[in-house]
Amino acid sequence: MKIVLRSPFDAHLHLRDGELLTRAAALASRQFAGAIAMPNLAPPLTTPEMCADYKSRVESLAAEPFAAFPALFLTDKTPLSPPDFNVFKPLAVKLYPAAATTNSENGVNIGAENLARFGDFFEMCAANGVALSIHGETNGAALEREAEFAPIYAALARAHPNLKVIMEHISTRVLADLLDRHANLYATITLHHLLYTIDDLIGGALKPHLFCKPVVKTAADRAALRELAFAAREKVMFGSDSAPHLRSAKEGSRCAAGIFSAPVLLPKLAELFAENAAISKLQKFVGDNARKIYDFRLPDREITLIDEPFTAPNEIAGIVPMCAEENIAFSIMK
Amino acid sequence: MKIVLRSPFDAHLHLRDGELLTRAAALASRQFAGAIAMPNLAPPLTTPEMCADYKSRVESLAAEPFAAFPALFLTDKTPLSPPDFNVFKPLAVKLYPAAATTNSENGVNIGAENLARFGDFFEMCAANGVALSIHGETNGAALEREAEFAPIYAALARAHPNLKVIMEHISTRVLADLLDRHANLYATITLHHLLYTIDDLIGGALKPHLFCKPVVKTAADRAALRELAFAAREKVMFGSDSAPHLRSAKEGSRCAAGIFSAPVLLPKLAELFAENAAISKLQKFVGDNARKIYDFRLPDREITLIDEPFTAPNEIAGIVPMCAEENIAFSIMK
Repeated sequence: MKIVLRSPFDAHLHLRDGELLTRAAALASRQFAGAIAMPNLAPPLTTPEMCADYKSRVESLAAEPFAAFPALFLTDKTPLSPPDFNVFKPLAVKLYPAAATTNSENGVNIGAENLARFGDFFEMCAANGVALSIHGETNGAALEREAEFAPIYAALARAHPNLKVIMEHISTRVLADLLDRHANLYATITLHHLLYTIDDLIGGALKPHLFCKPVVKTAADRAALRELAFAAREKVMFGSDSAPHLRSAKEGSRCAAGIFSAPVLLPKLAELFAENAAISKLQKFVGDNARKIYDFRLPDREITLIDEPFTAPNEIAGIVPMCAEENIAFSIMK
Repeated sequence: MKIVLRSPFDAHLHLRDGELLTRAAALASRQFAGAIAMPNLAPPLTTPEMCADYKSRVESLAAEPFAAFPALFLTDKTPLSPPDFNVFKPLAVKLYPAAATTNSENGVNIGAENLARFGDFFEMCAANGVALSIHGETNGAALEREAEFAPIYAALARAHPNLKVIMEHISTRVLADLLDRHANLYATITLHHLLYTIDDLIGGALKPHLFCKPVVKTAADRAALRELAFAAREKVMFGSDSAPHLRSAKEGSRCAAGIFSAPVLLPKLAELFAENAAISKLQKFVGDNARKIYDFRLPDREITLIDEPFTAPNEIAGIVPMCAEENIAFSIMK
């Protein structure tokens, strides 16, 4: 069986910077025609100029034609006057709650009063067709903090009906259920949240390479995500949240959050969708839906997957990928 | 402040074997006058002869007067005729559900039919004053598997009203609540389940050295355990479940379950009980309750704790202890 994907798109990708970027950009471009590049670098991409510079660096390092769309990092110090979208207009501004995840120390206090300060800014985004992308977790208990964010998503969607609000890497049934209640709410779903539950992380041996934020949840949560993905619901996009961390940062006494799924994304997605009789929905999930939600242009490419097994690498440049050494039923045709 | 503990007892301890045993026995004897030694060795202690041999080896390696009480490992192959208690009568037989934790591959199928096969055996234990100690987890979802075991505890307690059934290292409110419903149910509680929740394990960076089975649960669960411990309820005993694993087994791509709390047990217990205005209950929790539940004799010793800070070691013989490098408010007076 061959599956031909037209210009697949990753709506949530971490490419990092420096040496890692070289590797990550090349890797991403072999499977995708484009991606939204997350701006939580050190320092974060807080200005249109930084986004423009990052975009050109990513694209110059890509191995194949690839469009990078850096999101603009929102901080409590972001000028509330409009940034100069003539310099660079992002597809989305990214809101990280302060201290929720990797390099998010500069994020935004999510108290209602503080978010209200951004009201005009968000309206300006809406008027310019710029979406608001959110890592939706409170500082609450690890297994509850995403669900606790639901009222904040709902309040933002209500307050700004013309703003596209993207719930990133949703992991719970609560947010899956929220999707239909507000016309302007959208979601990305990762491959790892479709594959794993908390039992994979802590049920047998502890598996640091399956540790991410939001943490993988219960089987019921995963089922809700699978329902959305396998139907390729139009408000849902694939976003890998692939995040490279060196083995030394993942295997130690304190392990960083983040799963490096980039090397296996399309083969594993094809396997999963094929196993669940959803292969006909894959094109919408990994490309068409995002193209309708965001207004972007991608290099016109075809990526062909074939049902010949592929063994995931053990390590790439010191980073252990998801599914390391596992056999995957599909591979990318060269 | 000085706290003098008379013959403190650890009702659930892993001392392992070989080189590790040398270190573990010495360490345990510096803080406790005795302990129930768990029999999940390789091979497990499945006969009275093996228990007797292990007891004498532990005691000969102890640095201070110390009584070791190995539990007898129950397997599906355990002869259902009475073992020879003249050779060695354990305080408890230990039931591990098959495949629930470290070295439990030889455990017992916990289906009701299979447990019924042990009916006469359990009655014989009851008649001889031998308790039934249980690692109560099903093969269910990681966060539910202890609560799912509650009906099995209840059924065993009802079926054998003269048998003391010990719920080991309880971690959930469900089991805390079960304790009062059956006169012959008892429980051990670890220090780590009194200290930590799932948020400490996965809420920030992932912490493999806080990974154990049963996994630490929610704040509400911990509160229920603290209530029992700080009141030193008579059916509750301290059992550390301290389990040494080499750093290499805890820090890698697959991390073993088990927390090595042995080096810090009494100082950290004193600190915790003092902080919670429960210091007057510590003697009951770490000794007197167990002495009433089990019928044992211990070397008559006094261990004195003093409120002078102690820095927990970073590593002992390749093993990272709980609270490594943390300052603890109490230390053991030499």
